[in-house]
Amino acid sequence: MSCFIVFEGGDGSGKSTQVNSLLRRLRRRNINVIRTHEPGGTTLGQALRRLLKLGEPMPPISELMLFEAARAQLIDKVIRPFLEEGGVVIADRFTSSTITYQGYGRGLDHELIDRLNHEATGGLEPDLTVLLDLPVETALARKNSAADNFDDAPLDFHRKIRLGYGALAAANPSGWFVLDGQRTPDELSREIWAKVQTIL
Amino acid sequence: MSCFIVFEGGDGSGKSTQVNSLLRRLRRRNINVIRTHEPGGTTLGQALRRLLKLGEPMPPISELMLFEAARAQLIDKVIRPFLEEGGVVIADRFTSSTITYQGYGRGLDHELIDRLNHEATGGLEPDLTVLLDLPVETALARKNSAADNFDDAPLDFHRKIRLGYGALAAANPSGWFVLDGQRTPDELSREIWAKVQTIL
Repeated sequence: MSCFIVFEGGDGSGKSTQVNSLLRRLRRRNINVIRTHEPGGTTLGQALRRLLKLGEPMPPISELMLFEAARAQLIDKVIRPFLEEGGVVIADRFTSSTITYQGYGRGLDHELIDRLNHEATGGLEPDLTVLLDLPVETALARKNSAADNFDDAPLDFHRKIRLGYGALAAANPSGWFVLDGQRTPDELSREIWAKVQTIL
Repeated sequence: MSCFIVFEGGDGSGKSTQVNSLLRRLRRRNINVIRTHEPGGTTLGQALRRLLKLGEPMPPISELMLFEAARAQLIDKVIRPFLEEGGVVIADRFTSSTITYQGYGRGLDHELIDRLNHEATGGLEPDLTVLLDLPVETALARKNSAADNFDDAPLDFHRKIRLGYGALAAANPSGWFVLDGQRTPDELSREIWAKVQTIL
């Protein structure tokens, strides 16, 4: 019954809305479920999130290592124990965000990222990755949180992220569920729920 | 004229005293010199130092990645620019501390540590590594800073660190200068100064 579901997509793709919607559906059925978000979810994760959002200038390799440090703790303290108890974990971002943002976006070596992802997760893979895909301009128009350092990047950066997600989904069609993020939240929620029921 | 000198050794080995002594000797000769310490030396490094010292429980891999994240920024923002201007950098701990503490001490894979050290430093190597070697019991008896999380480890941990340093020094005799840390600070300072003068 344990199940690990990851939501991925660019900034403004509607991940939080869909994560919350799935969370409510599962809770209504008394299914033991938690949500996590990256970076965050542990004391270390929250501290790293504050550091990253302060916009402290740092080399891309430092940013990568901070994300992986927080991820390793999140896996160790939260995700793995909860899955071992048979629960459902819904993660708002996971290893694929690191490949797209730090790899496709910042240009870090993909093999290095794969290695660090593997070290941080101990090889734990999602049972399902839901990708909310939509044009970069549409996604960014939805966002107006000027305080978010992650959103200050130019359009071209976000386009690379979208391309990266497309490549990851294409490489693993059975593990990824790609949805058109321009559809209504209700439609998306129903389709995600139908898919999740097939793997629970 | 640029020169990168690293001081290594276990907790209580007298690194700070010798770093300060060398710093004073160089400054008296109007040599452009800075000291750095790890973790620390940048805003990110200080924040990570606070995090690590809080004793927040975290997997060894997270600890490793935090050290490397801070190191990458320290190299990028402080050490490399200063060396490029022809200055002398004295570092209180560097990559060898990671190999001994996280590798020999915590048991993390040495090849992974070497890889991350290389990624963080961009391949920058010290011109000289000074190792202050002394019996673990003697070193720890000198320390009474109970607030220091790094010192809470058992004797066996510190013994592994000492063995690790010995192995690193033996593998690179021309790059390492090993001193008996039980000698007086004045004797050590004079001998270090004589050695440093040969490479400046």
